[in-house]
Amino acid sequence: MINWKNLDTLNSFKELQGLGNEVDLAAVMTGEQGAERVKNMSVPMAAGLTFNYAAKKVDDKVVDTLAKLADEAQLLDKFEALYNGEVVNTGEKRLVLHQLTRGQLGNAVNADGTDKRDFYVAQQKNIAEFAKKVHAGEIANAKGEKFTTVVQIGIGGSDLGPRAVYLALENWAKKNGKLLMEAKFISNVDPDDAAAVLNSIDVEHSLFVLVSKSGTTLETLTNESFVKDALKNAGLDASKHMIAVTSQTSPLAQSSDYLAAFFMDDYIGGRFSSCSAVGGAVLSLAFGPEVFAEFLNGAAEEDKLATNKDIRKNPALLDALIGVFERNVLGLPCTAVLPYSQALSRFPAHLQQLDMESNGKSVNRFGEPIDYVTGPVIFGEPGTNGQHSFYQLLHQGTDIVPLQFIGFKNSQIGTDVVIQGSTSQQKLCANVAAQIVAFACGKDDENKNKKFEGGRASSIIIGEKLTPASLGALLSHFENKIMFQGVTWNINSFDQEGVQLGKVLAKKVLAHDTDGALKVYSDLLNI
Amino acid sequence: MINWKNLDTLNSFKELQGLGNEVDLAAVMTGEQGAERVKNMSVPMAAGLTFNYAAKKVDDKVVDTLAKLADEAQLLDKFEALYNGEVVNTGEKRLVLHQLTRGQLGNAVNADGTDKRDFYVAQQKNIAEFAKKVHAGEIANAKGEKFTTVVQIGIGGSDLGPRAVYLALENWAKKNGKLLMEAKFISNVDPDDAAAVLNSIDVEHSLFVLVSKSGTTLETLTNESFVKDALKNAGLDASKHMIAVTSQTSPLAQSSDYLAAFFMDDYIGGRFSSCSAVGGAVLSLAFGPEVFAEFLNGAAEEDKLATNKDIRKNPALLDALIGVFERNVLGLPCTAVLPYSQALSRFPAHLQQLDMESNGKSVNRFGEPIDYVTGPVIFGEPGTNGQHSFYQLLHQGTDIVPLQFIGFKNSQIGTDVVIQGSTSQQKLCANVAAQIVAFACGKDDENKNKKFEGGRASSIIIGEKLTPASLGALLSHFENKIMFQGVTWNINSFDQEGVQLGKVLAKKVLAHDTDGALKVYSDLLNI
Repeated sequence: MINWKNLDTLNSFKELQGLGNEVDLAAVMTGEQGAERVKNMSVPMAAGLTFNYAAKKVDDKVVDTLAKLADEAQLLDKFEALYNGEVVNTGEKRLVLHQLTRGQLGNAVNADGTDKRDFYVAQQKNIAEFAKKVHAGEIANAKGEKFTTVVQIGIGGSDLGPRAVYLALENWAKKNGKLLMEAKFISNVDPDDAAAVLNSIDVEHSLFVLVSKSGTTLETLTNESFVKDALKNAGLDASKHMIAVTSQTSPLAQSSDYLAAFFMDDYIGGRFSSCSAVGGAVLSLAFGPEVFAEFLNGAAEEDKLATNKDIRKNPALLDALIGVFERNVLGLPCTAVLPYSQALSRFPAHLQQLDMESNGKSVNRFGEPIDYVTGPVIFGEPGTNGQHSFYQLLHQGTDIVPLQFIGFKNSQIGTDVVIQGSTSQQKLCANVAAQIVAFACGKDDENKNKKFEGGRASSIIIGEKLTPASLGALLSHFENKIMFQGVTWNINSFDQEGVQLGKVLAKKVLAHDTDGALKVYSDLLNI
Repeated sequence: MINWKNLDTLNSFKELQGLGNEVDLAAVMTGEQGAERVKNMSVPMAAGLTFNYAAKKVDDKVVDTLAKLADEAQLLDKFEALYNGEVVNTGEKRLVLHQLTRGQLGNAVNADGTDKRDFYVAQQKNIAEFAKKVHAGEIANAKGEKFTTVVQIGIGGSDLGPRAVYLALENWAKKNGKLLMEAKFISNVDPDDAAAVLNSIDVEHSLFVLVSKSGTTLETLTNESFVKDALKNAGLDASKHMIAVTSQTSPLAQSSDYLAAFFMDDYIGGRFSSCSAVGGAVLSLAFGPEVFAEFLNGAAEEDKLATNKDIRKNPALLDALIGVFERNVLGLPCTAVLPYSQALSRFPAHLQQLDMESNGKSVNRFGEPIDYVTGPVIFGEPGTNGQHSFYQLLHQGTDIVPLQFIGFKNSQIGTDVVIQGSTSQQKLCANVAAQIVAFACGKDDENKNKKFEGGRASSIIIGEKLTPASLGALLSHFENKIMFQGVTWNINSFDQEGVQLGKVLAKKVLAHDTDGALKVYSDLLNI
């Protein structure tokens, strides 16, 4: 029997608060003890990844208490309920089924008169067939020439995830002969976004993917018109250059304005939709359906690990609850995501949405105000770039920021150069290793300006190489981490009511139906 | 007589603490009172910009107290000392002269046996002459063909600022026939960064700008070798494809490996170097020296405003002290920078470095620990994209994040489309106006999940259009804001000792001179 309780009513949470800030990270990370700790505090993940939490401020006592918390909050039971198709998104009264796009974790889930796994697989097959026809030139432009570029039109979850995944795999695909079409993305309602992308491509050989679940997202429909104008001005038939990704009930679903339509449904939130048709169409067109399938398999393998009841063998659960410990016991308001991989340049922006939109909530799942903090601010940039930028504050600022490193042993392209006895890839990896220890152990100095306090906690996910499978596993890890945190906080991670008020007021401004401050701002901005 | 005192020793700060969280933002922003407030709390900036702080949690009493604080902390006197050439960077015993690259704010400054304004202007002239020869084809590749692409090799301050500025003006330049060369940037030691950029350009027609003040930055020298290999492999003479931007005393200064060398000096910190040769070379090559001059003029005009002793007429000072109020009195740990302009996509990343590397410090300028918080975490993405991402947390999360909006009345390219009675540009502007009011005033709802508390403070900088001049003014505003905050906190904003320990440990890893935890991490990462 599942009970939904606020975090601060749980005995294990009170026990956790009692443990507080006991672990002296600099001490436990020093000497042979430190070496043993790094060896031991490591959890295998899918696709060759490992989650290492040695540099977190936890010991066996804390982890044991986190395990108790996982039990008392029924996190695994609730996850099971989710993937077995219970209505977990209570605000919008919806199932939450993004895991089902990549595998069958539990029971068959029936909704809308169909087996939902079958539905998602059917969409993948439809997309794969379509993509293969495009690649073969069977679906081509009016002159019968192959499409060379795919342009996604979408915003938020229809943009950040697919874009981050595309950028993460673009160089890998080039290197491995899998870059079948170049992808571009139009998202912002700023007209300069669409204009700049259109100026940079050959529209005659471009296929556009319009992504909007409801078929009513204003930014996306606006950018669609922008693109249609450009196609018309180039003497092209827009309906021969466009496909739609939408829900079956949307106005776009049966429109003759599109070459084809592929479907998601209400059970997949935008920010969790990279594995659905939202990511599937653009990624299958860019890299081929086989590569997209590898990405899904990596995510599915990682999903399975998230069902393990042993917290020490469940990286998403462990990562999630260490985060709750840092947020609600140690009182830390931010988390930095720091991938040592240029290919992951937009992955932090995707996680920023995934995390902050899911867990930036102040009421529990029953709409009651809660008395503890929830989701942190998430930010990050790739290393080593960040080291030459904001790391100063991370090392010596007055506030502590928990860190989440990601690193790979091998580069994607494999071209490298030896300088001062090491390759660039070795330098990259040496830097992330050095940072973990620098943050944890610090360094004393008579000159206090050169002193490092240490005690600044981090974890790292280490992989062999950033590939479709390891990227899928990485994505699944963070999706499940965020889900577990939301459940621990007893909030609904799957709605986003906080975005509504701005939309309503923007419509008023555009209708010139304003007074007071809003009218003056509108005047100042010349609307 | 200048006194350097810690913030918590100042009477005006204690007075400020007494004022606390008195302003009910939702109340004062409602109705006619709100309209008057937006009209009144507006400060003209340079190049057609305006700083509006109506939606900040301040009233006349708070601003008056901030003015007292500015007096008591001698902020204007200290700024004057800085631009007149006193040794303000006490840690490294250096002058701080970045303002001098764009104008003569105060007295002539002599150092290293030369008038420094003359020195910076001379470098600009050298760069301008060189750039014009490149554009005219007088300096060309071995076949006598024009260079079409310029590639900056640099990291941190040699990357983020120039890159953000380039991206901000690229579409403006295309539209106005000023894009003379396309620019690319290589920064990360990740070998995939350089490899991907090199794969995307025509090296035979590319000119590389190597930027390193010391001439010893490991990432940059490594990437230089990477590029030289690529040039050699293409049968090209690397020394005919490369220029250097460095200090006169660096090993690069007199090397025959470069077509030309342009100089900065130790008085310009990396993150403040966009207006020096660091930004000057790549931007003058990309857009022409006249455009770079307009950018400098915008910054110089804004610098002048920062010398105004009336806080209500000094936008950088006012913005800075409102930030101190939010950080040290209201206790808020982050600030979000939210430009409603896709062209400013990397401007938040530049400000993140500028702010967090300058003010992420725990000791005062004398190396003594301080008992109050300093620089906040800075993050941000362009609107409206962010609205569909992390704004959920900003509206309904448990933590309050102060917001800094930027918006322009007109787009850069000017191509637009009318949907539902408004242009995209109008929709963009309507959204930023709506967000300010939504954050400030909130909205009640019986369903607490749909309730917006309001009281979430923001400011906005409004401009006519993002141009070289307004971008320069924007950059100057933030540079001066951050400088005023650092002085208020009595810290040295111009060193970055926090980046050293990681460098030292990374070298040890590469020399295999490690034990304990560092050795195990090195093994796990296959170094």
